[in-house]
Amino acid sequence: MVNPPGHTSRDGHQWTPKAGLVAGLPTLGTIKPQSKLRSADTIYDVAIIGGGYTGLTASRDLATSGHKTLLIEARDRIGGRSWSSNIDGYPFEMGGTWVHWTQPFIWRELFRYNLLGENLEVSMSHEGGINKCIVRPFKDRPAIFLEKEQEDKISESAIKKLVDVDGQLGRTVIPLPHDALRNKEAVAIFDKMSLGDRLSEIEHELSPLERNMVEGFLSITCGGQWHDSSFFELLRWWALSNWDYKGFMEMGLTYKLRCGQSGLQRCIFDEAVMSNNLDYSFSTPVATIHDQQNLVEITGRNGEKFRARSVICTVPLNVLHTIQFSPELLPLKKQASVEGHANHVVKCHVEVAKPSLRSLGTFNYPYGKLTYAFGDGTTPSGNTHLVAFGSSLPGVHLQPEENVQETLDAWKGLLPDTKEEDIKRVVFHNWHKDEFAQGAWEWFKPNQVSKYLDALRERQGNVWFGSADWAQGWRGFLDGGIEDGQRVAKEVADHLKTREIKVKL
Amino acid sequence: MVNPPGHTSRDGHQWTPKAGLVAGLPTLGTIKPQSKLRSADTIYDVAIIGGGYTGLTASRDLATSGHKTLLIEARDRIGGRSWSSNIDGYPFEMGGTWVHWTQPFIWRELFRYNLLGENLEVSMSHEGGINKCIVRPFKDRPAIFLEKEQEDKISESAIKKLVDVDGQLGRTVIPLPHDALRNKEAVAIFDKMSLGDRLSEIEHELSPLERNMVEGFLSITCGGQWHDSSFFELLRWWALSNWDYKGFMEMGLTYKLRCGQSGLQRCIFDEAVMSNNLDYSFSTPVATIHDQQNLVEITGRNGEKFRARSVICTVPLNVLHTIQFSPELLPLKKQASVEGHANHVVKCHVEVAKPSLRSLGTFNYPYGKLTYAFGDGTTPSGNTHLVAFGSSLPGVHLQPEENVQETLDAWKGLLPDTKEEDIKRVVFHNWHKDEFAQGAWEWFKPNQVSKYLDALRERQGNVWFGSADWAQGWRGFLDGGIEDGQRVAKEVADHLKTREIKVKL
Repeated sequence: MVNPPGHTSRDGHQWTPKAGLVAGLPTLGTIKPQSKLRSADTIYDVAIIGGGYTGLTASRDLATSGHKTLLIEARDRIGGRSWSSNIDGYPFEMGGTWVHWTQPFIWRELFRYNLLGENLEVSMSHEGGINKCIVRPFKDRPAIFLEKEQEDKISESAIKKLVDVDGQLGRTVIPLPHDALRNKEAVAIFDKMSLGDRLSEIEHELSPLERNMVEGFLSITCGGQWHDSSFFELLRWWALSNWDYKGFMEMGLTYKLRCGQSGLQRCIFDEAVMSNNLDYSFSTPVATIHDQQNLVEITGRNGEKFRARSVICTVPLNVLHTIQFSPELLPLKKQASVEGHANHVVKCHVEVAKPSLRSLGTFNYPYGKLTYAFGDGTTPSGNTHLVAFGSSLPGVHLQPEENVQETLDAWKGLLPDTKEEDIKRVVFHNWHKDEFAQGAWEWFKPNQVSKYLDALRERQGNVWFGSADWAQGWRGFLDGGIEDGQRVAKEVADHLKTREIKVKL
Repeated sequence: MVNPPGHTSRDGHQWTPKAGLVAGLPTLGTIKPQSKLRSADTIYDVAIIGGGYTGLTASRDLATSGHKTLLIEARDRIGGRSWSSNIDGYPFEMGGTWVHWTQPFIWRELFRYNLLGENLEVSMSHEGGINKCIVRPFKDRPAIFLEKEQEDKISESAIKKLVDVDGQLGRTVIPLPHDALRNKEAVAIFDKMSLGDRLSEIEHELSPLERNMVEGFLSITCGGQWHDSSFFELLRWWALSNWDYKGFMEMGLTYKLRCGQSGLQRCIFDEAVMSNNLDYSFSTPVATIHDQQNLVEITGRNGEKFRARSVICTVPLNVLHTIQFSPELLPLKKQASVEGHANHVVKCHVEVAKPSLRSLGTFNYPYGKLTYAFGDGTTPSGNTHLVAFGSSLPGVHLQPEENVQETLDAWKGLLPDTKEEDIKRVVFHNWHKDEFAQGAWEWFKPNQVSKYLDALRERQGNVWFGSADWAQGWRGFLDGGIEDGQRVAKEVADHLKTREIKVKL
C-alpha cells in the first residue's frame, strides 16, 4: 500500500442509532494525499479522466508500460460506481459487488493480485436460520413464505418464459455473448422491445407468483421502469450466463470479495503508482476538454489545467454531457448521454441483530420502497448484514438520505419480526442523486444499443472513451469496466507508438 | 508483424499423394531470423526458457513493462505444444485448439488483439451431409449410426454417471473450479482414483453403447491409459465446464480461431518485440541452468551462454528433468518430471474430397489406431478437414510418421466409403515422440496432484517455473498456459522491483 488506507470518503451515508445519519464512509479507496503532480508544465503521454475500474485499468496498463500517465478523478476516492466501505474490517459494497470466473477480465485481475482462494466468499446463504424466501404479491394479503426449492422453481420457470423468444432460450438471438450484435436481424427485433413489451407478451403464461417474482427480480437488475428498459440487455446478460438459470444467479449475485471491491482497486492503483509513471489529482471534477490536435488541455472546475498528448475519458454515460468538449462531443455521443440509460436504483445495506435472517431472501415489488433483499454476510459483531435495492417506480423511488426514518421503515416492512432497536446500522450510496454517476450501472433504454453503442466506443481526435457502460461483454458489470479499460489503454499505447515512429521518421 | 510470416518449421509432418510424407510444416509461428541478441556480455533482467503460451505471455508482460528480457526457445518457432500450420491460408491446429469465453486468460488475449468477432469459428458441424455419429463398439459387428440427438443423449448420460460421485454431479468435490484443492478431504479421495477405478465402480450402470462412447471420449481427453490417468483431473475439467454436459462440449471442443493459434501467438510475440526490450534465440535447446545467487547462467546445448538476474523456466513437465540444474532441481519437481504425466495422444488431421463428411463424428475405441474423429472445417479447395486423436493403448499406439500407410489405413477405417484417392492430405505432429514435449497436454497420473502440484509451482532461488502443466484453473489447456505465464511474470517483476529498492537503500 502506498499510504495507510482506511480514510473516510465524502461518498455514501451511514445511519446508526447513536450517531443518526452521517454523510461519508470509511474506505480503503480514499487516496491521501489527494494529489501527486510533477511540474505544472508537464505534458503527459495520457491523461485519464475517472478512476473507476476502466480508468484504473487504463492507468495501470499505461503507467507500467512506461507512459507518463495522469489520473484525474472528481471524487476523493478510486472506484467510481463500485467501492466498498470498510467498517470494522467488514466490507459493505456500495455498488458493483459480485464476481465470477466466467467474467474474464476481473477474474484475471483477482488472479494477478492473489485475491482468489479464501478471499472469495458467498453472499446468499441457505443454511440455518429462517432459510425462506418471502414474497408479497398482494398489498393487503399476508406474505407468502417459500422454501429455497420452491423459490428456485418459480423463479427459473418465470425467467425461462421471459427469455425463451426462440424455443432455444434465446441462444439463436445471441449465439456468442461477447459479440452480442452479430445476429443483426435478431438484435433489431429485441433492441426495440422494452421489458414492459416482453412482459405483456407473456403475461398470460405467468402465474401471479411467477409474475411477481420475475418483476421483483427485474426491478433490481435493470433498476429502471419497464417501458424504459431494453429487453435486449436482459437477453445479453442471460447469454453471458450460459443461457441457464443457475448460471444467471451464480454469475450475477453469488461470489464477492472478502477484501471488498476497494481492496482489489487498491491493488491496481498501487501497482500503477509503484511504476513511478503515475501522477494523480483527486477531488478534481473536470469542466472542459479541449483537443488542440497535438495536445489536449483539460480544465478542472476550479481552474486547474492539465496537458496531455492523449486523453481517456471514462466519465459515465449519464454524466458525459456535463463536460464541455471542444471540438464538441460527437452528436450521437451527446444525444446518448443526454437521454441517459435507465438504471436509477439505490442500493441499501442494513445490519440487524438477528442472525436468523442470514438465510432470508425477500421480494417486495411493486409496493415497497425496497423491492428485493437478501442476507449478504455476518458482521464482526455477529449481526446479519442484508443488502437491498430500492424501487425506481415513481412514488416509491427511495431517496434514503432525504428521509432516513422512511428507510428504516422500509427495512422493518421487509424483515420479519424486526423492530427498530434490532437495526444496528444502515449504509447506502444514492447513485441516483450522485452528481458524478447520475444513475447506477448501465441498463440501456429500448433502441439505444442499435443507435448509440458503436458511437459511444468511438475515438474522437486525441480523446478515447472507455466505460463499463459501453463494454462489449459484461456491459454494466465490473468485468465490463476492466474490459473497456484495457481496450482503450491498448489503443492509446498503439497510437502513441505509431506517433513516436512517425516523429522519428 | 516483425518479419514476413509463413516460414516452414521443422516441426510436424505432411503427407500428400504427390509428395508423400514430408517433415516440416509452414506456420506463422516460425521466427526469422532466428535470433536477435545484444552484446554477449548483456545481463538480462529475466531470461525466459520456452516460447509456448506461458513463455510468450511472460515475455510480453515483462518486456512491455520495461524489463530487459530474453526468450530462449529450443524449436524454430513460438507456440510450444500449441501451434497451427497454415496451409494455403487454412490453419490446421497441431496441438491446443479450442477456446471459450469462460477461459478468462486466453479470452482477454483474444480481446486485446481484436481477434474475436468473425475470427471465432465453430469446429463441429451438424448441418447437411452425413450428419451422423458412427460408433464401433464391437470389433466384428457393423458400426452403429447415431443421430446428433441420440449421440448427445447417450454421451450426456454416460458422462453424468461418471462424474456424479456426490449426487450433485461433483459440485461438492470442487465447488470453486479455479481453486480445485479447497475441499481437501474430497481431493484426497478422488486424486487417488484412476479413470479405470472409476469406470469399474460404475460399469454396471453403463449400457454397452454408453461405455463405448464415454471410453472413446476419455481416451482422447486424458490421452493416456485408464490405470495411469487421474479421475480428479476429469472432475476438475467438469467443474470448470460449469458441471454441465453442454458446457463440457462447448468449452472444450467447439470454438477455434480462424487465424490459428499461431496467429494469436504472433500478436503476443510481436507486441513484446515492439517494446524494444525483447531479445530472443530460437533453435537453442537449453542444457544447463546454473543459479549463482546474484546471477543465473544458462548454457545451450551448443555451448551458447546467457546471463540473467532471474529465469522463468516454462519447459513442460515431461521434459524438465532433461535440463541440468545447479543447484539441483528440488526433489519433488525432479521426481514429478521423471514420472511424467499420462498424456501421450497424437493428433492427426486429414483433408478428404468428401464434403458430406463435414458433419461426421466417429468413435473407434478401443480397436482403432485413431479413436475419435470429427469434421473440423472446410479447406480452401472445398474439401472436408477432419481431426482425429490416436489411441494410446499398447499395441495400437499410433506413430503416424513411422508408417504412413498405417495412418492412411486408419483414416480409411474411420471414414465411411472413403478410398485412398479421396485422401488429399494428412497433417500431424507426434507429441509423444517430440523431444521438447515428450507427451501432449497435461493429464496427471493418480496421486500426482496431491504430491507434486504445489512443488511444481514453487520458485527455486532465482528460477521461477511456469507452465499450463501446473496451472490452477484450466490446467492442461491453452488458458492455463497464459494464466501461469502472467503469474510468474508478475512474481518476477515484483521480485526485481524489491531487489532494486534494496540495492538503492
